[in-house]
Amino acid sequence: MGILVVGSVAFDNIETPFGKAERCLGGSATYFSVAASFFTDVELVAVVGDDFSEKDLEIFRGRRVNLDGLERIRGAKTFFWSGEYGYDLNVAKTRDTQLNVFANFQPKLNERQRNAQVLFLANIQPELQMNVLEQMKKPRLVALDTMNLWISTKRAALEKAFAHVDLVVINEAETRQFTGEANLVKGAREILSLGPHTIVIKRGEYGVLMITRGEAFAVPAYPLENVFDPTGAGDTFAGGFLGYLTSRREHSDLELRRAIIFGSVLASFAVEKFSLDRLREITLENIYDRYRAFRTLTHFEDFEVL
Amino acid sequence: MGILVVGSVAFDNIETPFGKAERCLGGSATYFSVAASFFTDVELVAVVGDDFSEKDLEIFRGRRVNLDGLERIRGAKTFFWSGEYGYDLNVAKTRDTQLNVFANFQPKLNERQRNAQVLFLANIQPELQMNVLEQMKKPRLVALDTMNLWISTKRAALEKAFAHVDLVVINEAETRQFTGEANLVKGAREILSLGPHTIVIKRGEYGVLMITRGEAFAVPAYPLENVFDPTGAGDTFAGGFLGYLTSRREHSDLELRRAIIFGSVLASFAVEKFSLDRLREITLENIYDRYRAFRTLTHFEDFEVL
Repeated sequence: MGILVVGSVAFDNIETPFGKAERCLGGSATYFSVAASFFTDVELVAVVGDDFSEKDLEIFRGRRVNLDGLERIRGAKTFFWSGEYGYDLNVAKTRDTQLNVFANFQPKLNERQRNAQVLFLANIQPELQMNVLEQMKKPRLVALDTMNLWISTKRAALEKAFAHVDLVVINEAETRQFTGEANLVKGAREILSLGPHTIVIKRGEYGVLMITRGEAFAVPAYPLENVFDPTGAGDTFAGGFLGYLTSRREHSDLELRRAIIFGSVLASFAVEKFSLDRLREITLENIYDRYRAFRTLTHFEDFEVL
Repeated sequence: MGILVVGSVAFDNIETPFGKAERCLGGSATYFSVAASFFTDVELVAVVGDDFSEKDLEIFRGRRVNLDGLERIRGAKTFFWSGEYGYDLNVAKTRDTQLNVFANFQPKLNERQRNAQVLFLANIQPELQMNVLEQMKKPRLVALDTMNLWISTKRAALEKAFAHVDLVVINEAETRQFTGEANLVKGAREILSLGPHTIVIKRGEYGVLMITRGEAFAVPAYPLENVFDPTGAGDTFAGGFLGYLTSRREHSDLELRRAIIFGSVLASFAVEKFSLDRLREITLENIYDRYRAFRTLTHFEDFEVL
């Protein structure tokens, strides 16, 4: 059953203060799938051009990623993004976006895909997210990501999409942009009032804040001495988070919290090298070790009355 | 024995998007003392003018704060700061600073003060911090705060001060400014290499990161629906943190972590109302309750192997 992700598979040009990479593998669905496949079976639904080679597919080999949903369009080019980061690695500056094959993307799910347990609607336009959601049978959990562009240009469609999902994964600035509310807790509650039972707010180097109707959970990011490339960190987080959840019988608060840590662990690896280079190397044992390191980083004892 | 703090007692004009307060009580030593006095005896060393009235002293009444070190200068005015915050409450914009009595402040410690167990050098010029430190007998722990002004104008004196203290309490932007290093972990290690065994980095609404020579500890800030006035949050944090530590026999990693939580708890109260208005109201029981809330906010279980 596993998880279905619909999003982008892309080529990126990336420049950071620590170097640059040209035409490297990227895309929300790529990062997400690789991260989630450590925990569960992934159905990847995306589109590429015929410039996307067998070699580019190597990243998925030996992983639990089914590529039946990866459409290839003849005579067209793969989605392309070019961006740069300054020393403040929290903010990407987009230099160029070429939608290419993505402009007319209209995914048709097959039977197996429609039966996926969990659905992740990565950051694509909200009408397309709804279109995919409507094709699903009876998913246990539907989660959605979005971006500033859709908040400003597709607000009504986005509000409708929010109303049909269980969980929103969004970054801090987007929460403030969507709600017009400076206070993050109030903004989160405003989004929850539209329908979702859980909001997961990504704060980059400051970690993650999850707010449900009853509980709040917060975790700092893992402090790293070397951050090379934050591209894909949010999608990698979502992959670790939802991949882990998909593998669990219960989506209790206890498991949601563990899932946030696994997401944070995966994201902390992703930024250590360019593109998906670090994700290619790591094993489940590395992931477990960093989960333990998160425990050490954040643990404190109850107080004794003074 | 207790803790000695040297810093400012001040009047502040504060404007935030939620209102304004004129000539309200402020100053680093004021916030620090009130917070620390929940846990230990405090010796306050500061200076005010004769515009500082008996009524202004009420904040200290019934608390474990000894005011023998609060000098009063006739015919002179109390230190005055005026500042404003936008919706991004992380950054204060200073409108006016009038040093007044603070310009010629040269504290002379009495015997009891010189014997304090713990010393906190709040944000005053580094030469003055060193002057106070040199008067101390044999403190168990010496901690220091500083600010962007001293980093840019008194760098050599500040480096010397760092070399003589055990612990530095500093904010994130100041760490980057002092070290010229964008990566916070590297910046922290650079400051540790000057002498201190511990650095505590304040990240405003994102919480606190503590780095010692062996360990790292990170905690998010408590998510609040109402933040009215961030003035004094850093000094209140330092007061809760060091006040708690002073009350403990051991300064182990376990106790340092608890101290970080108590500091975070006190700071989370401080920002809920203007000036010290919220700190005036709270009891030790309120503090314990929020400590427990921090446990709930941040707790996650170990994983079970998948």
